[in-house]
Amino acid sequence: MRIRNVKDKENILDSCPIYIKDPESYRLKWNELFLNDNPIYLEIGCGKCSFILEASRRYPNINFIGIERIDSVLALGIKKIDNFPKNLILINYDANYIDKIFDKEIDRLYLNFSDPWPKKRNSKRRLTHVNFLKKYDCIFKGKKVIELKTDNRDLFEFSIVSLSNFNYLIDTISLDLHNSSINDNILTEYEEKFAKKGQKIFYLKATKL
Amino acid sequence: MRIRNVKDKENILDSCPIYIKDPESYRLKWNELFLNDNPIYLEIGCGKCSFILEASRRYPNINFIGIERIDSVLALGIKKIDNFPKNLILINYDANYIDKIFDKEIDRLYLNFSDPWPKKRNSKRRLTHVNFLKKYDCIFKGKKVIELKTDNRDLFEFSIVSLSNFNYLIDTISLDLHNSSINDNILTEYEEKFAKKGQKIFYLKATKL
Repeated sequence: MRIRNVKDKENILDSCPIYIKDPESYRLKWNELFLNDNPIYLEIGCGKCSFILEASRRYPNINFIGIERIDSVLALGIKKIDNFPKNLILINYDANYIDKIFDKEIDRLYLNFSDPWPKKRNSKRRLTHVNFLKKYDCIFKGKKVIELKTDNRDLFEFSIVSLSNFNYLIDTISLDLHNSSINDNILTEYEEKFAKKGQKIFYLKATKL
Repeated sequence: MRIRNVKDKENILDSCPIYIKDPESYRLKWNELFLNDNPIYLEIGCGKCSFILEASRRYPNINFIGIERIDSVLALGIKKIDNFPKNLILINYDANYIDKIFDKEIDRLYLNFSDPWPKKRNSKRRLTHVNFLKKYDCIFKGKKVIELKTDNRDLFEFSIVSLSNFNYLIDTISLDLHNSSINDNILTEYEEKFAKKGQKIFYLKATKL
């Protein structure tokens, strides 16, 4: 996808009251920042924030953090928010270094429509590659819970095998989320487009003790 | 599926040189019967034997056993075999009592297009229900390997969760077997029909130490 550069992105980010510029300095202090001990759910690759924003509004007793690597995308998302929830924080950061900003603080991880990196030589970049799963082990507080959605068959197949071989158990799975018994789904921007085209959405929830 | 009664089924079964009438008496003696120590691969629900017959011809150094609950179906399959492989045995038996005929003798289990038992109250009848997985634990020799194919989404989703929660690892998975990199697939009778209709075939290989 071509990403449009947002000219005033720095201003947008800096003036956003729930945007954190220096996330590394909050390592081990995220619950202090939220001023409560509620669980923290993290979305890696939150894009324009539709999902994490709706989740934070729907579940006020959970803290949400959205991480997006591309500053312009995050700025476009922030521009659309008219009322900033107290239980939501947004970060512009690269997931490769996720263990530099969290240390046993996360209760659940969302991976929604992550880049499938279709070429085999790029498989290490997929967010469910074992190298990432090892990093997630360091950021999870207790029981590890990953929820994943994608429209990409190859990424979904890869993720099932990768998670399973890293001793995650597949708790829930749907090969057609929008025609399933799962009814608390929150749509992402991509998902809304795909669903309109009638494309099947794959979903799984995996846990590891 | 309505099953046509085959009038001379008993004659067909009894006159088949690779049909075993009293499988319980071969418990712990299957390798003796095959006259070798080769691994034994089992198909539960072998139907009209297309798959297990082709497998036994393709892999002469592996012993194959096909079990089918419905005698008429098995008889129809046997009628079509013109040359009986030495590494194949056929049995008319109910998988519910599978542990009465094998005791740590099986190296691999095939579940091809098993009855999906769609109603929740019948879920215990699905061949990947935990009660069956427990029985399979008794019949596997060492490492447990299950290969499963189906066109039924619900059965496939159920099987992934059931196997995963019984500590099987998903080694390989395809949500569209006939459009995948897996190229040693042997077609079953059902599969041939489904594939012609363009229906997607789900496949997985799961292992447990």
